[in-house]
Amino acid sequence: MELIDGKKISLQLKEEIAQAVAERKEKGLKIPHLAVILVGEDGGSQTYVNMKVKACEFVGFKSTKIDYPVTVSEEELLNKIREFNNDSDVDGLLVQLPLPKHISDEKVIDTIDQSKDVDGFHPISMGKLVAGLPTFLPATPAGIMELLDRYNIETEGKHCVVLGRSHIVGTPMTLLMSRKAKPGNATVTMCHSRTKNIAEITRQADIIIAALGSPEFVKADMVKEGAVVIDVGTTRVKSDQTKSGWKLKGDVAFDEVKDKTSYITPVPGGVGPMTIASLLKNTLMAVEMKGK
Amino acid sequence: MELIDGKKISLQLKEEIAQAVAERKEKGLKIPHLAVILVGEDGGSQTYVNMKVKACEFVGFKSTKIDYPVTVSEEELLNKIREFNNDSDVDGLLVQLPLPKHISDEKVIDTIDQSKDVDGFHPISMGKLVAGLPTFLPATPAGIMELLDRYNIETEGKHCVVLGRSHIVGTPMTLLMSRKAKPGNATVTMCHSRTKNIAEITRQADIIIAALGSPEFVKADMVKEGAVVIDVGTTRVKSDQTKSGWKLKGDVAFDEVKDKTSYITPVPGGVGPMTIASLLKNTLMAVEMKGK
Repeated sequence: MELIDGKKISLQLKEEIAQAVAERKEKGLKIPHLAVILVGEDGGSQTYVNMKVKACEFVGFKSTKIDYPVTVSEEELLNKIREFNNDSDVDGLLVQLPLPKHISDEKVIDTIDQSKDVDGFHPISMGKLVAGLPTFLPATPAGIMELLDRYNIETEGKHCVVLGRSHIVGTPMTLLMSRKAKPGNATVTMCHSRTKNIAEITRQADIIIAALGSPEFVKADMVKEGAVVIDVGTTRVKSDQTKSGWKLKGDVAFDEVKDKTSYITPVPGGVGPMTIASLLKNTLMAVEMKGK
Repeated sequence: MELIDGKKISLQLKEEIAQAVAERKEKGLKIPHLAVILVGEDGGSQTYVNMKVKACEFVGFKSTKIDYPVTVSEEELLNKIREFNNDSDVDGLLVQLPLPKHISDEKVIDTIDQSKDVDGFHPISMGKLVAGLPTFLPATPAGIMELLDRYNIETEGKHCVVLGRSHIVGTPMTLLMSRKAKPGNATVTMCHSRTKNIAEITRQADIIIAALGSPEFVKADMVKEGAVVIDVGTTRVKSDQTKSGWKLKGDVAFDEVKDKTSYITPVPGGVGPMTIASLLKNTLMAVEMKGK
């Protein structure tokens, strides 16, 4: 069993991006600029946004952070998005989700100029993914593809079982793993809450990607000897072993599963750290695509 | 074994659309108008386009057909698309594929106003499909969903194996069968040219959707007793049994497979007739969505 070290790989990726930024500086090219909009005071969202801003500093990007109170109107938010769309200095733009109920996620995402859609959630980005065209990939699936690639894990002709069908993880993961590319070219089964005999299916998997948000759902008897297990789940559960009183749990019962696997991602420290690195990669791509 | 009669269902669907058009007329609402652009003189494409125009007449739609010689420039074609985009009388617009090599399919599809994209190939249409939002569905997958629905075939919790990963059939089929809807909610495995042990996988399928374009690929020993088999393949093969010297062959070895199935589509007369009916349905939807 080899542990897939997302922390190490994400650091590698960030260092490569920092290097690319340094080279751009030397050549007098534009420094990538990410704008992040946060609405409300949800603790989790604040933490994520701050991590994104810090990651920008780390790689040498410029960043702009806009904080709105939870009471901001949809129209004011959309106008700010339009302002960033028209600002040629801003290369990447994201609005931290979830949003308060009076604001439509769909409208917000649709309003972002697709050429700045570094979250990869815009319908055009998703549609290009379906068509196999180059585009911004959603951060978590992109991070997983990066891990598979950097650990030289063979995917071609393998049976990959994706647990979960969200349009943020499960569905794009299915599209990426099945498409004609490397990594990719896998036979993919997408399972979800309505799947019957799920253990029968996961036991056939050479690669399991668990993105259900159901703590320790994948048990040892659901995993084939030698399988690759990627755990996307991060559910906060109560714990008396930590100072905070909380612990992050993945979708995989790590302790009992790990010895059956050839590769496995831990939680935390597996897929999680890759998402922000993928966001930075998208932002660099946004500025490169403009040829600036 | 019950034969799924695509000819009958497509006629039903067309009659329902004709009825809706008649009601629109009575109420003084706009008559749906489909514009079709054909480039070059490929016999197959000409036949398809003529069938589409005739189908419009049948249901009472207005239609416009533009013929370009194979030498037409990309810019001239794009300008015609833009003209139709701006023409408020035109509700649906499609350019018959394939196009000659000097014209980019991608540019053509991207130029079509998504609100008139009745072929469902525009990236925004595909992206909305991924996100589970209402949108124009590509004609063949939409036709298959219609058949499953009208034959009351249960899909929830069933294992559906899709053979083929094209962005015209296999991929949207996977998205539709797995999404939270009725029909839908199936566990879906997408297979393709790189899949190993394909027979082992198809033998587990409650529903097989074959869209490989490989004549008689699915044999009896690949099909579970009682499975539903949907055949999307239509390959022209030489035949001494027909006057034309050609015969349409599906992806399924119909004669040996049929008795193992609970439902099966024939070729021709199964999925094929549904595609034009789906196109008409999309065109009606286009005008209804505008509230005209």
